[in-house]
Amino acid sequence: MAQINENYFKLQGGYLFPEISRRVSEYQQEHPRDDIIRMGIGDVTLPLTPAVVGAFHEGVEEMSRAETFKGYGPDQGYDFLREAIAKNDYQDRGADIHADEIFVSDGSKSDTGNILEIFGQHNIIAVQDPVYPVYVDTSVMTGRTGKYLENGYYDRLVYLRCTAENGFIPEIPKDRVDIVFLCYPNNPTGTTVSKQELKKWVDYAIRNKAIILYDAAYEAYISDPGIPHTIYEIDGAREVAIEFHSFSKTAGFTGTRCAFTVIPKSLVASTSDGSEKPLHPLWSRRQATKFNGVSYPVQKAAAAIYTPEGKKEVKSSISYYMNNARILRENLAGMGFQVYGGINAPYVWVNSGRGIKSWDLFDKLLNEAQVVGTPGVGFGPSGEGYFRFSSFAAHENVLRAMERLKNLNWNR
Amino acid sequence: MAQINENYFKLQGGYLFPEISRRVSEYQQEHPRDDIIRMGIGDVTLPLTPAVVGAFHEGVEEMSRAETFKGYGPDQGYDFLREAIAKNDYQDRGADIHADEIFVSDGSKSDTGNILEIFGQHNIIAVQDPVYPVYVDTSVMTGRTGKYLENGYYDRLVYLRCTAENGFIPEIPKDRVDIVFLCYPNNPTGTTVSKQELKKWVDYAIRNKAIILYDAAYEAYISDPGIPHTIYEIDGAREVAIEFHSFSKTAGFTGTRCAFTVIPKSLVASTSDGSEKPLHPLWSRRQATKFNGVSYPVQKAAAAIYTPEGKKEVKSSISYYMNNARILRENLAGMGFQVYGGINAPYVWVNSGRGIKSWDLFDKLLNEAQVVGTPGVGFGPSGEGYFRFSSFAAHENVLRAMERLKNLNWNR
Repeated sequence: MAQINENYFKLQGGYLFPEISRRVSEYQQEHPRDDIIRMGIGDVTLPLTPAVVGAFHEGVEEMSRAETFKGYGPDQGYDFLREAIAKNDYQDRGADIHADEIFVSDGSKSDTGNILEIFGQHNIIAVQDPVYPVYVDTSVMTGRTGKYLENGYYDRLVYLRCTAENGFIPEIPKDRVDIVFLCYPNNPTGTTVSKQELKKWVDYAIRNKAIILYDAAYEAYISDPGIPHTIYEIDGAREVAIEFHSFSKTAGFTGTRCAFTVIPKSLVASTSDGSEKPLHPLWSRRQATKFNGVSYPVQKAAAAIYTPEGKKEVKSSISYYMNNARILRENLAGMGFQVYGGINAPYVWVNSGRGIKSWDLFDKLLNEAQVVGTPGVGFGPSGEGYFRFSSFAAHENVLRAMERLKNLNWNR
Repeated sequence: MAQINENYFKLQGGYLFPEISRRVSEYQQEHPRDDIIRMGIGDVTLPLTPAVVGAFHEGVEEMSRAETFKGYGPDQGYDFLREAIAKNDYQDRGADIHADEIFVSDGSKSDTGNILEIFGQHNIIAVQDPVYPVYVDTSVMTGRTGKYLENGYYDRLVYLRCTAENGFIPEIPKDRVDIVFLCYPNNPTGTTVSKQELKKWVDYAIRNKAIILYDAAYEAYISDPGIPHTIYEIDGAREVAIEFHSFSKTAGFTGTRCAFTVIPKSLVASTSDGSEKPLHPLWSRRQATKFNGVSYPVQKAAAAIYTPEGKKEVKSSISYYMNNARILRENLAGMGFQVYGGINAPYVWVNSGRGIKSWDLFDKLLNEAQVVGTPGVGFGPSGEGYFRFSSFAAHENVLRAMERLKNLNWNR
């Protein structure tokens, strides 16, 4: 008799974004002529850039001729891409990471979820609160949490509160934690961490033999020179951290699919007899067994962002979105919102300052202004009262959305 | 203190194909001028066909313009592809499968490995012996087996012997089994199952509330009308089977990456309190949480195989490979090998008939004829003495390989 994985029944409701989708479609069905401006899901709107498109087409052409056709590629990605990543994203920033420590994948969502497979079942996992829901839901699905509690938390999962009071940098935990998910520039708060603050976490992990799972999906949005683009800019991080990067937000790859994960060869975890073993061979085996690499033309397209033209184009797309972020910040602050993030990250995190709950604000903005954002509480209890605006919308829509919000009546 | 998943330490040596690679590179380094003919890994050699290439380019073009750009797609795949699959691969064959029961993915290797996530930890898993190693290794990695035993088997995994004596169709198990991996047309033996034989398995699963994980990656190579292309041609299969298909071997997508998994909405598994729950919502949730869909241009390319030109082109590529299979069969039989498979499948499974062990034959063919095949024992103990030839090589290489084998001296 086949048994189901009952951990799935602990999961709460739908994943945040399907719930947003549901409310938006319901509204749209009732008001088919209304023009809804979507700033909810953090999805890019600018097309792939010319350098990327050119390389993508070339890759397809190579697949069309026997002499250049590519069958199964290396599970960890083609060397040309791994080397470009190692040089540009790490070595040029003084981070000591080599091509053979990089695993190319189809997405950071896959990797941040699947990475738990190489860890034992009884690790205590910590997540930031508010948090990107994937870390929590995959912890639940793999049975590493207890039940969902009435306070909005899962039992046995450690929540690290990130609020305006602590500048959205969590305090070092007092109780035992084995694995910590950290995301900077942060989704959803759009805030960043300094090298000094991040060093505290690396030191904590070294002292406690904990592992940091560092999600750097938004690093391309950093413009301040003091903010680390990668955790490996911090001394000692090679011993304690796995890092996730994605081409999704850097180069508009949300529909094209390419990302990578870094596992330094010096990273170890413990066995039950107290010895330590490197994690690199485990993930290598995991990928060789359960993954067949990323589509060749997609890897070729991804590598194009490291060419001189590619770099220029990426920079220009990011400026476009960051200009949106600036407009969001300025307008929302002008309307009396408390505004965070949006300076080195594409997300603007706001509090209405009027005591309105997140989903109530969602419904108000949808019903009265036809503007869709993301309710902060969807990212965790500490997000209650907050709201996320994404700067990935088209520029004119950001302007229109702000106009509509200015005309809202806050007294009903 | 972060703990490692120690189940990985139960895994034996490398995955089969890396070991082949290692021996081949070693030989090549010692004999740099030798011309090695590779028929080891089941990797295609014909390029993508014109209809696929055209659609692939179109998809890239759409990604280059704001009006047609696609960001995040549906996690389960675009409707245009799911509908084409449902119609062509199922409904046109009389199998009652709908588009919303199809989950498009990046590969069957990913799916056949990841599918175990939605099942409880204590299911007893059965695999064919010999078997595609992914089913075994993922069962081990997820802790669903015991240790590796001296006889070449893992404890707590049920092995279903497939040999010439039972026509490579395993006997229905006598002991408890909850989940059975079946692969037809079979990798590695190249043999097939009739509707009548497959019906016995479906009936067994219904009686025992077991689940069949049916890998149909090679169904496009079936030419005999009596052989089922999908398990859903069998009455009752919607209640007990999950099916995996891939574009890899059907349309040369090993480097392009697209596949799909079918989970009928009527398929259930048991909970610990004895009730039954559908599996479709669990996989749906798994994919929404840990996967972000397949690259849009790749899905567009995959859908092109269902157009009239695409169908013609697929048929022609398959005829090319099956002509290779015929040449392999005829020549190897002529040399005194016992020959199986290769009629409705791209693999030819042979026994030297001279009592030679699989890896010894591998080394002999590599050293004396510079021909690479796959040692049968790499697929499991019942593969000992057998050897797999893949028909995916270029036609002229198949002819040359057969010439070289004819000249081998079997007395040393």
